Amino acid sequence: MTDLQPGPTNSLADVAGVRVGHADRRADGWLSGTTVVLAPESGAVAGVDVRGGGPGTRETDVLDPRNLVERIHAVVLSGGSAFGLAAADGVMQRLFEAGVGYPTGGPGEVVPIVPGAVIFDLGRGGDFTKRPGAAMGEEAYDAAFSEPAWSSASGPVPIGGVGAGTGAVAGGLKGAVGSASVVLADGTTVASLVVVNSSGSCVDPGTGELYAARFGLPGEFTELLLPDQADVAAARAAADAKVGAGGPARLGAAFATTIGVVATDATLTKAQCAKVSGIAHDGMARAIRPVHTMFDGDTVFCLATGDREAPDPLAFHALLDAGGDCFTRAIGIAILAAESVETPAGRWRSYRDAFPSAFTAG
Amino acid sequence: MTDLQPGPTNSLADVAGVRVGHADRRADGWLSGTTVVLAPESGAVAGVDVRGGGPGTRETDVLDPRNLVERIHAVVLSGGSAFGLAAADGVMQRLFEAGVGYPTGGPGEVVPIVPGAVIFDLGRGGDFTKRPGAAMGEEAYDAAFSEPAWSSASGPVPIGGVGAGTGAVAGGLKGAVGSASVVLADGTTVASLVVVNSSGSCVDPGTGELYAARFGLPGEFTELLLPDQADVAAARAAADAKVGAGGPARLGAAFATTIGVVATDATLTKAQCAKVSGIAHDGMARAIRPVHTMFDGDTVFCLATGDREAPDPLAFHALLDAGGDCFTRAIGIAILAAESVETPAGRWRSYRDAFPSAFTAG
Repeated sequence: MTDLQPGPTNSLADVAGVRVGHADRRADGWLSGTTVVLAPESGAVAGVDVRGGGPGTRETDVLDPRNLVERIHAVVLSGGSAFGLAAADGVMQRLFEAGVGYPTGGPGEVVPIVPGAVIFDLGRGGDFTKRPGAAMGEEAYDAAFSEPAWSSASGPVPIGGVGAGTGAVAGGLKGAVGSASVVLADGTTVASLVVVNSSGSCVDPGTGELYAARFGLPGEFTELLLPDQADVAAARAAADAKVGAGGPARLGAAFATTIGVVATDATLTKAQCAKVSGIAHDGMARAIRPVHTMFDGDTVFCLATGDREAPDPLAFHALLDAGGDCFTRAIGIAILAAESVETPAGRWRSYRDAFPSAFTAG
Repeated sequence: MTDLQPGPTNSLADVAGVRVGHADRRADGWLSGTTVVLAPESGAVAGVDVRGGGPGTRETDVLDPRNLVERIHAVVLSGGSAFGLAAADGVMQRLFEAGVGYPTGGPGEVVPIVPGAVIFDLGRGGDFTKRPGAAMGEEAYDAAFSEPAWSSASGPVPIGGVGAGTGAVAGGLKGAVGSASVVLADGTTVASLVVVNSSGSCVDPGTGELYAARFGLPGEFTELLLPDQADVAAARAAADAKVGAGGPARLGAAFATTIGVVATDATLTKAQCAKVSGIAHDGMARAIRPVHTMFDGDTVFCLATGDREAPDPLAFHALLDAGGDCFTRAIGIAILAAESVETPAGRWRSYRDAFPSAFTAG
């Protein structure tokens, strides 16, 4: 891995044909949103691995490698817990209007295949009933076709407190959307997008370091300093107050879920896509601790656009290796992109605000 | 099994606390609908088994026995292919308004757990775009609280060409909703509701008999006569013309899916509920041939209300045995309840109209 480099935008946009759109609300009781990852119009071969104990999903059974449909047309990641699964309805409607979907008969008679997963962020904006629905799915779809930043030509995917990451929280700090990419030695691109909303923490409680930081590409996280002990002690006290020492004491504070997508331009089978999703969960385990708990519905989708040829076993090994790290890196990038948020329901500090000594020598 | 009897209504309504509601449309390009099965307000322990090759589902991952949430609040069965998954949004909204759901914090802060599965019936009413959405889910929910027939006190569950069975087709004949129940020797009730919409046939092509007929409770299907050879030959010719000899020739005619629910008043674990769902698929295999094909998204949910105690291994064996047969019986009852339908998109004859000699001695 040592000589690998990210793609031009170090984001999901580096996989040709993949688009990302965010929609979100931050006022009037809201702190939530939806992110859509659109495959090329002809679809992408896809897989999924659900490893969290409290998942909220739709159209995951279609991805079983035994089943008929090979290609999906979008993945919806949303806030709103199970209510947010409705966002996929809006994305399906837009895709149908665009004539994109699984063909079932005559012209225009298509069924868009849109798997999705949700995070728990209900009530974080102050109003439990303000959550994404079909209209926000449509809005996210439209955003995927708007400037700025929907493709590698126009810049990286927007990250931070946007889309499905708007209301995200990670171990008591503010969560966010992150994205990363890597170009393998053979030219294959692997990229990831994650919504970090974990009951566990992304930060080593003893040192204040991001767990993900040691898995960066050359130079990627090296500007981070070792936080000073004052920041570490203060952050630990704040986390204990918010989350509870030894784990959440209140059920409402425990609900979480980290979800994401790995995309590649390689040609993969559905079963290989499921394998990539599983390795991404390993990347999640290196960046978040604990993870995959009963309060996390952690789910990862993989999309393969098939622009490049199918990897041989050693090339697939390299893709898996880089894919796992790419997911870890996206989590680190998410936490670094997060900004502190305060709503009537509470205040969530960003890693930057909780560990200022990681960014400026004391 | 020989001495078992059905419950008072021989339908899903025989499981105390379970309600069923249908909503549907039959004109202006429509031939589709939605059926909701509501658990008691405190929920039902549930499982699922997806055995078809083309499933359309939501919230099935939550039912993995490893995962946190033990109880669900409703199951949505709908026409409309993947578009019909939106019907669950409407049911979730109604349940939320009623305060029913998984508790996540303060009063009223609940997330209704509503798994669902869909059948392919798109375009059968003449207009591909007329398909169930959130509003039809709300309508089906409301119907579950309206007379007639929402509980064992008020009569059996409506069956035939209603709800999710409105646009159902089974091997070239008209499909439908069916329901059945059985009371075990120990007093446990097991009941099923099925939407028969299969690419395979429910009819033995050599004799014209319903495959399900031989698995009825005493007296249940015994009024059926052996169809005469004229009916058998005519039905086979019609099926060949519509479906294709040796299987569907057109892709659009192939898409299908049989979905359903088994409910019981026993106390079962999530894993046991998944096992019951799997045995129901065996019951499906006895009533439909072929079944679970790549064009069928066959999915069965199981709900256990827990009013009675947990079965010991022999009692659970008896429950599984009766549950499989109860699903077979519901399929036979569905096909007998179906009525011929004609729309701008085609004409689907009922078993009664295709095999009149099964009902009146020639």
